[in-house]
Amino acid sequence: MHALLRELYPLCRSITGEGVRETLRVLGRYLPPGLQVREVPSGSAVLDWTVPPEWNIRDAYIKDQQGRRVVDFRRLNLHVVGYSQPLPRQWLSRAALDAHLHSLPAQPALTPYRTSYYQPAWGFCLPHQLREQLRDEQYEVCIDATLDAAGSLTYGQLVLPGDTDEEVLFSCHICHPSLANDNLAGVVVATWLARWLAARPRRRYTYRFVFVPGTIGAICWLHEHRETVVPRIRHGLVLSLLGGPGEFTYKRSRQGAAAIDRVVAQVLRQAAPEAHQLREFTPYGYDERQYCSPGFNLPVGCLTRTPFAEFPEYHTSADNPGLVRPRQLAASLRLLRQICRALEQHDRRYLNRQPYGEPQLGRRGLYGGLKGTGNPKQAEMALLWILNLADGQHDVLAMAERSGMSFAALRRAIRSLRRAELLAPVPPPRE
Amino acid sequence: MHALLRELYPLCRSITGEGVRETLRVLGRYLPPGLQVREVPSGSAVLDWTVPPEWNIRDAYIKDQQGRRVVDFRRLNLHVVGYSQPLPRQWLSRAALDAHLHSLPAQPALTPYRTSYYQPAWGFCLPHQLREQLRDEQYEVCIDATLDAAGSLTYGQLVLPGDTDEEVLFSCHICHPSLANDNLAGVVVATWLARWLAARPRRRYTYRFVFVPGTIGAICWLHEHRETVVPRIRHGLVLSLLGGPGEFTYKRSRQGAAAIDRVVAQVLRQAAPEAHQLREFTPYGYDERQYCSPGFNLPVGCLTRTPFAEFPEYHTSADNPGLVRPRQLAASLRLLRQICRALEQHDRRYLNRQPYGEPQLGRRGLYGGLKGTGNPKQAEMALLWILNLADGQHDVLAMAERSGMSFAALRRAIRSLRRAELLAPVPPPRE
Amino acid sequence: MHALLRELYPLCRSITGEGVRETLRVLGRYLPPGLQVREVPSGSAVLDWTVPPEWNIRDAYIKDQQGRRVVDFRRLNLHVVGYSQPLPRQWLSRAALDAHLHSLPAQPALTPYRTSYYQPAWGFCLPHQLREQLRDEQYEVCIDATLDAAGSLTYGQLVLPGDTDEEVLFSCHICHPSLANDNLAGVVVATWLARWLAARPRRRYTYRFVFVPGTIGAICWLHEHRETVVPRIRHGLVLSLLGGPGEFTYKRSRQGAAAIDRVVAQVLRQAAPEAHQLREFTPYGYDERQYCSPGFNLPVGCLTRTPFAEFPEYHTSADNPGLVRPRQLAASLRLLRQICRALEQHDRRYLNRQPYGEPQLGRRGLYGGLKGTGNPKQAEMALLWILNLADGQHDVLAMAERSGMSFAALRRAIRSLRRAELLAPVPPPRE
Repeated sequence: MHALLRELYPLCRSITGEGVRETLRVLGRYLPPGLQVREVPSGSAVLDWTVPPEWNIRDAYIKDQQGRRVVDFRRLNLHVVGYSQPLPRQWLSRAALDAHLHSLPAQPALTPYRTSYYQPAWGFCLPHQLREQLRDEQYEVCIDATLDAAGSLTYGQLVLPGDTDEEVLFSCHICHPSLANDNLAGVVVATWLARWLAARPRRRYTYRFVFVPGTIGAICWLHEHRETVVPRIRHGLVLSLLGGPGEFTYKRSRQGAAAIDRVVAQVLRQAAPEAHQLREFTPYGYDERQYCSPGFNLPVGCLTRTPFAEFPEYHTSADNPGLVRPRQLAASLRLLRQICRALEQHDRRYLNRQPYGEPQLGRRGLYGGLKGTGNPKQAEMALLWILNLADGQHDVLAMAERSGMSFAALRRAIRSLRRAELLAPVPPPRE
Repeated sequence: MHALLRELYPLCRSITGEGVRETLRVLGRYLPPGLQVREVPSGSAVLDWTVPPEWNIRDAYIKDQQGRRVVDFRRLNLHVVGYSQPLPRQWLSRAALDAHLHSLPAQPALTPYRTSYYQPAWGFCLPHQLREQLRDEQYEVCIDATLDAAGSLTYGQLVLPGDTDEEVLFSCHICHPSLANDNLAGVVVATWLARWLAARPRRRYTYRFVFVPGTIGAICWLHEHRETVVPRIRHGLVLSLLGGPGEFTYKRSRQGAAAIDRVVAQVLRQAAPEAHQLREFTPYGYDERQYCSPGFNLPVGCLTRTPFAEFPEYHTSADNPGLVRPRQLAASLRLLRQICRALEQHDRRYLNRQPYGEPQLGRRGLYGGLKGTGNPKQAEMALLWILNLADGQHDVLAMAERSGMSFAALRRAIRSLRRAELLAPVPPPRE
Repeated sequence: MHALLRELYPLCRSITGEGVRETLRVLGRYLPPGLQVREVPSGSAVLDWTVPPEWNIRDAYIKDQQGRRVVDFRRLNLHVVGYSQPLPRQWLSRAALDAHLHSLPAQPALTPYRTSYYQPAWGFCLPHQLREQLRDEQYEVCIDATLDAAGSLTYGQLVLPGDTDEEVLFSCHICHPSLANDNLAGVVVATWLARWLAARPRRRYTYRFVFVPGTIGAICWLHEHRETVVPRIRHGLVLSLLGGPGEFTYKRSRQGAAAIDRVVAQVLRQAAPEAHQLREFTPYGYDERQYCSPGFNLPVGCLTRTPFAEFPEYHTSADNPGLVRPRQLAASLRLLRQICRALEQHDRRYLNRQPYGEPQLGRRGLYGGLKGTGNPKQAEMALLWILNLADGQHDVLAMAERSGMSFAALRRAIRSLRRAELLAPVPPPRE
């Protein structure tokens, strides 16, 4: 995953343009077959928005009076404010230029990431210490960019069909240029999750991976799938910031207690009991803003490690591949696999066929012999919990919540008890 | 407010008598026009009670054998037990006198406040250190008071009519003699709140201020308004101890989660997030005891700073105007204004007219241009929250609870969004 | 109670056999008249189980080559694994013997308690320090026990009839040999509780005390009373570990918020506010496992002091009469009496006959005269709470929960208010 992240890092992505297209081309080589790439023409009306002109950029710089590129887009694409208007080569006084510069006085060595998608503007981002060294009277500046009203916005999606057409949605934003944790980390983890899901023998749900430019991309996707796919979404996650430092943080969907909210809470409780955070929905953040707008109100939460704006490297040049650790990507992937496994079984219900008293597990070979220590094994506890809660009322998710046991342990216990004919599945109400 | 408090401080109030009448006369000069003063004759049956004889007192003292007034009502009216029986001038042995003395061994410099309204008794209150210095064999004592069975109990009320006849009740007890925080502080804050409300261009609710002797006064008021006003009360607060030290404390109504309970909790969360307490209803305290009796069960809470009996000056001569700070009166008034503003809007509901995805705020001038810092302004957050929760289900109070934003910020956001035609009010079910 | 405990301590109890019978014979001398002893034949099918052969043991030992009994059942019955197969006298090599030895390396001076009821096995338990001193090449071993397929399982029960046939169940396990806290403590406390209940002039509920071998005994009892008694059980407690150290711990029933769960929580809050624990149901523990199996789902919780496996003496020779203190037995009994008293009244409802405002308690002699301290007496608070909550909606349990007052204080207040004709009982919906 880290190698793919490093491969994608240099591309200059934005909410439209070649950087997104090239990113999807690269992803297509790693994803299971079937990535669909969609172009939405500039000017299209999508929900309450209009797709903007397509932005592309070849070069941009600030040269000093000796002709040295003191700020150079080609060295770091964060140096140009995203969606900067084209700026023909020209000389500007230092004061005139300064009004278009962005830097971080508190982090003087870092270049910030800034954009201005819908308000025509241009600007450069640079380390504050460099800005303070600009002493020439005049600077030559140029932004060799295009804004093409005949262009389009590009997004990708991959659908892995399942036994039912009920869907699980994973959504990642792919509009940030050279920022690693935000959100190449989410993109590569999603890619590997798709590979794992594609290799599974069966999938109860249809899984859909959506790689979209933030906000306008999600709005395009919602616009185009409003009648068809949206009504079939049962669970969803926005995946972001999954490679950086810090503990897992889950932001609940607007619904607040949807199955996805409860499943993620349980998986985190098991996987990272000491080190995770659950947060309530707020209407600021990533594309859960769109999925959880009141008209859609989808059960879509947001999974990250340390959330946006809460780590010092956020939206700066320090969010580079060095911030993302392979170990953290792997842990994020592992967590998502557990979430998928839990989702697939979360609403299953069972009936204990010997509900009066405990069934005698010993004679069925399910229980240890010598007694007296008072410390049952986890596997035995899982058997007892399942038998106790297999009343047709508790589904597996409720069993996990009440017992505190992992979905994996419950799954194994269910398998043993079904083999021993102590458990009968309750047919689901519909499907 | 503090000047009015100092003006009222010397008057000898009790549950009946000239002190209450004079207090209401003074208040009438500060309140908006319309204070009604009501006399309920002694002997009247009110709910389960009977109005007691009217008590008035001219003088009282304990003189030593040298004829010096060692305890003198005219210096401090707390020196006489409230509602003391008339006591003709007479000599008493020290022991006989001592059985009628009240002092505070743990606060030897302070004079306590004591009353005996319904059990015939007489007594003096004095500093414990003074009591210990009483060494004479005999003392001359006199309580020049009257208990008049043909008298009456006096209370006042002021009604500020609103657009509807639904009422908000503010109730203060006015039966304590020279005690400043308890409850001249509540009385003067209520007076200024009435002035502010009277000056508002519109009032949705009718506001009623009730200045009553504690317990029996509230019972008289309830008795006389049981059929007429009581059914129209939508929200209410007992106001006490609003000028002393300590953090705001809100005691919930018996209902526990009435709109007033939820509104005050939100306003305190915004106004004093670090420093306030919420407490459950108990049937001991001020006149919420009467308003929240099970037959009425009105949505009336009690707002104080440090509650009764929890500050050392409580019911002693140390509860004097020096304990009450103008700054604290002002903060209490400010809080009550916020509560009133919040009440007026708390149950309004709105519909987001672009509920699918976020509406594009930028093109409507509602959203900043340059993006990337990850820290939206509070005003922008309020817009996003309103849009997200304007589903016709959440009223403004629920929006405040869920968002944690102030009612003021939500109000401004609603105004902006209505101006931009993004928000439509939902007609209230009735009114 | 401690004397009875010491009398019962030496008997070698197990899930069947003479030790249980003798234990019940002794208990019969202390219990109120009416203890029924039931024999369930070995081989009987009970729920999902089969009653095992009856086990009895006369002697067992390990002798060294000098003929000395280094491990001697007659000195401590814990030395033999419970339900050991009969083992004719024979010589075994040290290695062969060692495979049948159980000791506690971390507590080398203590003998553990071990059983193997359903898996044929034999073994000895001994202090680890003794085990390490076994250096002879050969040892003579013998277990002079019988397993009788024509035997039976023995349990006892005592029924104290009440005004109704609704029942309260107390269940204790009596299958542990020389272990004092586990569970002779529960047994003797139950015995004294039965004596106290038998002596009461009236009992609303029928009280049933069940003395059963753990698991299989409870299963026998449930099997035999499934249609008759089980449907009448309204509340129940498993009583264990009630004489040892540590704070009271209440494990809720599977229902979680049954009346018994709420009553015990309130009584503990009053009796031991600083020192008790409430725990959620789990399907591991004592016979609540059976009573709370999903088919029965009875409102039966488990009351202990420090729970099993959480004190170092658990299931070792250190759980001897010295661990159990008379003072702790007495406190457990006191708590249970409070629980019974609370159960008898918990669902009573009352109507305040003067619900508008507070009734004037003073003229009825229910309220102190002189006022001003701000600290009402507990008895006055109880009067105010009852009057406030006597709305026909709150039962006594809800009153206790909301007021935090003890059931005893509420009971006294109800009595006073009924005498003053301020309170009318609400007839129960059925009974």
